Amino acid sequence: MREISAADIDDICLGAAVLGTGGGGDPYIGGLMTRAALAQHGPVQLLSLDEVADDAHLVSVGDMGAPTVGIEKLRADNQPVNAVLALQKYLGRKVDAVIPFEAGGGNSLMPIYIAAKLGLPVLDGDGMGRAFPEMQMLTFSVYGVRACPLAMADEHGNTVILEVRDDKRAEFIGRGITIRMGARASIASYAMDGATARRVAVPGTMSLAQEIGATIRAARHDNADPVDALIAMLAGTHYEHGRRLFTGKIADVARETKGGYAVGRVRIDPLAGDVAALEITFQNENLVARQGEALRAIVPDLICILDAELATPITTERLRYGQRVTVLGISAPPIMRTAEALDAFGPAAFGLAETFRPLEQLG
Amino acid sequence: MREISAADIDDICLGAAVLGTGGGGDPYIGGLMTRAALAQHGPVQLLSLDEVADDAHLVSVGDMGAPTVGIEKLRADNQPVNAVLALQKYLGRKVDAVIPFEAGGGNSLMPIYIAAKLGLPVLDGDGMGRAFPEMQMLTFSVYGVRACPLAMADEHGNTVILEVRDDKRAEFIGRGITIRMGARASIASYAMDGATARRVAVPGTMSLAQEIGATIRAARHDNADPVDALIAMLAGTHYEHGRRLFTGKIADVARETKGGYAVGRVRIDPLAGDVAALEITFQNENLVARQGEALRAIVPDLICILDAELATPITTERLRYGQRVTVLGISAPPIMRTAEALDAFGPAAFGLAETFRPLEQLG
Repeated sequence: MREISAADIDDICLGAAVLGTGGGGDPYIGGLMTRAALAQHGPVQLLSLDEVADDAHLVSVGDMGAPTVGIEKLRADNQPVNAVLALQKYLGRKVDAVIPFEAGGGNSLMPIYIAAKLGLPVLDGDGMGRAFPEMQMLTFSVYGVRACPLAMADEHGNTVILEVRDDKRAEFIGRGITIRMGARASIASYAMDGATARRVAVPGTMSLAQEIGATIRAARHDNADPVDALIAMLAGTHYEHGRRLFTGKIADVARETKGGYAVGRVRIDPLAGDVAALEITFQNENLVARQGEALRAIVPDLICILDAELATPITTERLRYGQRVTVLGISAPPIMRTAEALDAFGPAAFGLAETFRPLEQLG
Repeated sequence: MREISAADIDDICLGAAVLGTGGGGDPYIGGLMTRAALAQHGPVQLLSLDEVADDAHLVSVGDMGAPTVGIEKLRADNQPVNAVLALQKYLGRKVDAVIPFEAGGGNSLMPIYIAAKLGLPVLDGDGMGRAFPEMQMLTFSVYGVRACPLAMADEHGNTVILEVRDDKRAEFIGRGITIRMGARASIASYAMDGATARRVAVPGTMSLAQEIGATIRAARHDNADPVDALIAMLAGTHYEHGRRLFTGKIADVARETKGGYAVGRVRIDPLAGDVAALEITFQNENLVARQGEALRAIVPDLICILDAELATPITTERLRYGQRVTVLGISAPPIMRTAEALDAFGPAAFGLAETFRPLEQLG
């Protein structure tokens, strides 16, 4: 067990943005809120999945909503906590710890914020291992934990409890509620015990986010190449394979807001030489990278577009013509690559024609 | 106390359609379901507000959704019951009786259906005294009972519990959920005790619906004028003043579906003579009847467009050029005409410029 304090938040924000793979929302506001909460209430315990008690009562927390709205709409102080308290009251059992449902983007921060406010530990693991756009795209769901009962809270002190059997329908109804709550709601869901979390969660992702952030920061400080440093660091984790897929200049971005998502394509031209451009298709998150006829990386493996100089992750909404970028592919951990997992968040779940092929086996 | 049996349903349907004042949804499917439930489970007790125990635990039931969808989308057998059971479980207290929230249209029937299925009494009273389009337009809300906790159920066995402080916002969020539930959801809400119901409900409206239906039926049978018979019958109730506002032929209907409502105007020309046409503006329900410069009737007083021959009520969605109609105005009972009540469902609540003037004081 170790602790997360206010000083750790910058690294976690940076690492979470990398794990956001272009989506997941900007961790900026969540970072500010969490830093303030940690400064006020003191550090939060970070429990590894091995450390949590078998019968610990866990609920999974985060935000649902449009990333664009998340950038400018502040959450009320108690909003994320209200979701947990509503679910706790409904279940009639005290929550022992919170577990993030999404390690990428802003949703890495809210669990720490909630843990600080409620004096609870936060688990080092999550249900996505990165960012995904929908509530049923979770390893929790894949391996048999149901999203409901699910509590939602808005910034006015209102809460809603969903008892919806099918997680995809829970996502659909929950999304409708989120829209009426102003496109940003706090969620508490996927109640489970510690033994179950060990079986269904992607382990170590809070630590991983922090380590990614720390690695980039250290490389910047040492004038080393942050991407090289990242690749070396990842080799020792279950996100084992880091691949520099491309370095180039953004030559074209086609993006539209469709069904609440930022959907589109970005073309990255080489800086020099007679090399085919890299094209990335995204739906909030980057989904597939193709170079000419060659598949370079595909969901659920991570495709991260980083500023070429400082390795700052660029979300799909902030892609612009002329940006110099490095595209980093990262292999998703084994728990996210099983047949069941690929059914939930593999290429077909996003309407892509390709079948999944592991990054490390592609050219 | 008396009973409602399958044989009473036709009259209640007819009377509820009159109280629907053009909206409230077609009672046809609700009537079929309720008749079948009464045939299977036996008659239901109808308790007057005077008879219910002070500490009886009541919940208010009905459907939310688009009337058009209600005509063709069947409810699942247990759907309306599931809403009550979800609220009962959430409140941790057995429900003693149900009270309709809307006496007009299809929502008069569902409480009887639920009462039959659960073996509970149904209260003779409701929260609207007619039909209104939104969940906060209730005397319950006007006189201080809150809609939440509010349970919703869909036809797949899914339920949602709302804890939303403001009833208008509960309507807004609940409407969003209803849309995602397929534009038709069953509701249990406005939990209150018997003493409170006596204070906040419009009394006697189930009996009234049945009596309206029976009166029209008897007049048809006797070749008497059903509208004359209705006006005579109403004089003995707290819906005291019935006024024949106009008889004529529908000359023009302008109707559009806007924000989920049937919004528009109907012009009714006189059958003969040099008389100004009657024009009625509606939003699901008929809101205001004007003849030339003269105001003839305005919400919350009831404006009912009836077939000129049989006095069959015509909903705003079924108005058509050429129909011969009689327009009947009915004074709303005193509990619906207080200043607080007019704030909630008087002319201004529908964006009308006129202030409320009682039907019986108009020309």
